[in-house]
Amino acid sequence: MEILDGKKVSNQIKEEITVEVAQMKERGEKVPHLAAVLVGNDGASLTYVGSKVRSCKKIGFESTLIHLPEETTEEDLLKQVHQLNNDPAIDGYIVQLPLPKHIDEEKVLMAVDPDKDVDGFHPTNFGKMALDMETFISATPFGIMELLKRYKVDTEGKHTVVIGRSHIVGRPISILMSQKGNPGNSTVTLAHSRTKNLKELTLQADIVISALGVPKFLKADMVKDGVTIIDVGITRVPDESKEKGYYITGDVDFENVSKKASYITPVPGGVGPMTIAMLLKNTLLARERHNA
Amino acid sequence: MEILDGKKVSNQIKEEITVEVAQMKERGEKVPHLAAVLVGNDGASLTYVGSKVRSCKKIGFESTLIHLPEETTEEDLLKQVHQLNNDPAIDGYIVQLPLPKHIDEEKVLMAVDPDKDVDGFHPTNFGKMALDMETFISATPFGIMELLKRYKVDTEGKHTVVIGRSHIVGRPISILMSQKGNPGNSTVTLAHSRTKNLKELTLQADIVISALGVPKFLKADMVKDGVTIIDVGITRVPDESKEKGYYITGDVDFENVSKKASYITPVPGGVGPMTIAMLLKNTLLARERHNA
Repeated sequence: MEILDGKKVSNQIKEEITVEVAQMKERGEKVPHLAAVLVGNDGASLTYVGSKVRSCKKIGFESTLIHLPEETTEEDLLKQVHQLNNDPAIDGYIVQLPLPKHIDEEKVLMAVDPDKDVDGFHPTNFGKMALDMETFISATPFGIMELLKRYKVDTEGKHTVVIGRSHIVGRPISILMSQKGNPGNSTVTLAHSRTKNLKELTLQADIVISALGVPKFLKADMVKDGVTIIDVGITRVPDESKEKGYYITGDVDFENVSKKASYITPVPGGVGPMTIAMLLKNTLLARERHNA
Repeated sequence: MEILDGKKVSNQIKEEITVEVAQMKERGEKVPHLAAVLVGNDGASLTYVGSKVRSCKKIGFESTLIHLPEETTEEDLLKQVHQLNNDPAIDGYIVQLPLPKHIDEEKVLMAVDPDKDVDGFHPTNFGKMALDMETFISATPFGIMELLKRYKVDTEGKHTVVIGRSHIVGRPISILMSQKGNPGNSTVTLAHSRTKNLKELTLQADIVISALGVPKFLKADMVKDGVTIIDVGITRVPDESKEKGYYITGDVDFENVSKKASYITPVPGGVGPMTIAMLLKNTLLARERHNA
């Protein structure tokens, strides 16, 4: 059993980007600039955005945090988005979700210039991904593909079962895993809430990618020996004995499933850390494409 | 065993559209106008485009055929595309594929205004489809969904195996079948050229959608009793005893597979005729959206 160490790999990726940025600076070129728009004061969102901005600083990117009050109108947010679209200094930006309820998320995401949409959430970028064209692949599925690639996990002709059909994880990773390429070329089954015989399917899987959000849902008796497990679930389980009042767990009963697995991602320290690394990678790509 | 009669259903759809168009005329409204761009003289393309234009006339649409010579430059074709984008008389248009080899197909398809892209091939429309937003769904997968709907084939929680991962059939139908909705909510496995255990998969399937293009590939011993079969393959098999010099066959060994099936599409007369009907439906939708 080998751990797919997302923390280690994400640090490698950040180091690689740091070197590239240093070279850009030496050549007198503009370095990548990521902006993040945050509306309101949701605790988790503040943490995520803060972490993204800190990561930018560490690797030598420029970064801008645009923190707007909770009561910002949709109109004002759209103005902000258009400003970012038209600002040549900004290579890429994200609008942190969720947005306050009085704002139409779809409308805002549609207003983001696809060429600056480093989250890869715009339909144009999603469509390009699905049609195997150059684009920004959103950070979580991109991170999973990169993790499989760096550990040289053989996916060709393997049966991959993806659990969960969300637009940001299950759907895109099911597409990427079945596309030509390596990783890729997998036979992919996409399972979801209406799937009737999930255990029957996961028992056939060479690779299980779980993006369900149900703690310890995937048990050892649901997988075969030698399986590769990618656990995308991150749930905070309340626990008063912990300093933070909760602990983090994934979709997978790691203790028991890991005994049967060839490769497995831990939670935390698996897919999670890859996500920020791939957002930074997309921002670097945005800079390079705008330069080209 | 019930035949999913695409010819009958497509005629129903055309009749429904005819009634709507007549009502538009009565109200003094502009009727839908479809344009088709054909470059060169490929025999099959001439047939397809001719058939699309004739269908428009029959149901009361305006139609324009723009037939350009084989030696048309990419630049001139792009000019034509921009003219169509800017012509308020045109509600939707298609660029018949394949294009001559000196023209970059992707570049041309990317130039089509997504709001007039009734083929649904533009990445923005493909992405909207995959993200379950309002869009133009391309005609073949749209036709399959409509056929399942009109015959009230229950797809929820069923295991659908799609054979073939093409951008115009396999990929989109695998997405649509697994989305929320009815038809939809299927557990979908996408199989392709790198799939190792295809028979093992098809034997588990409640629904098989084959878009492979290999005559009579799917045999009776590959499916279970009660299966629903959607045959998207259309191959011309040379046969000197036929007047045309060929006969048309699908991916499915119809004679034997049909004995085990609950529902099955014939070839010809199944998915094929649905395709033109759904192109007309998309053009009607384009007119309505431009009106709204």
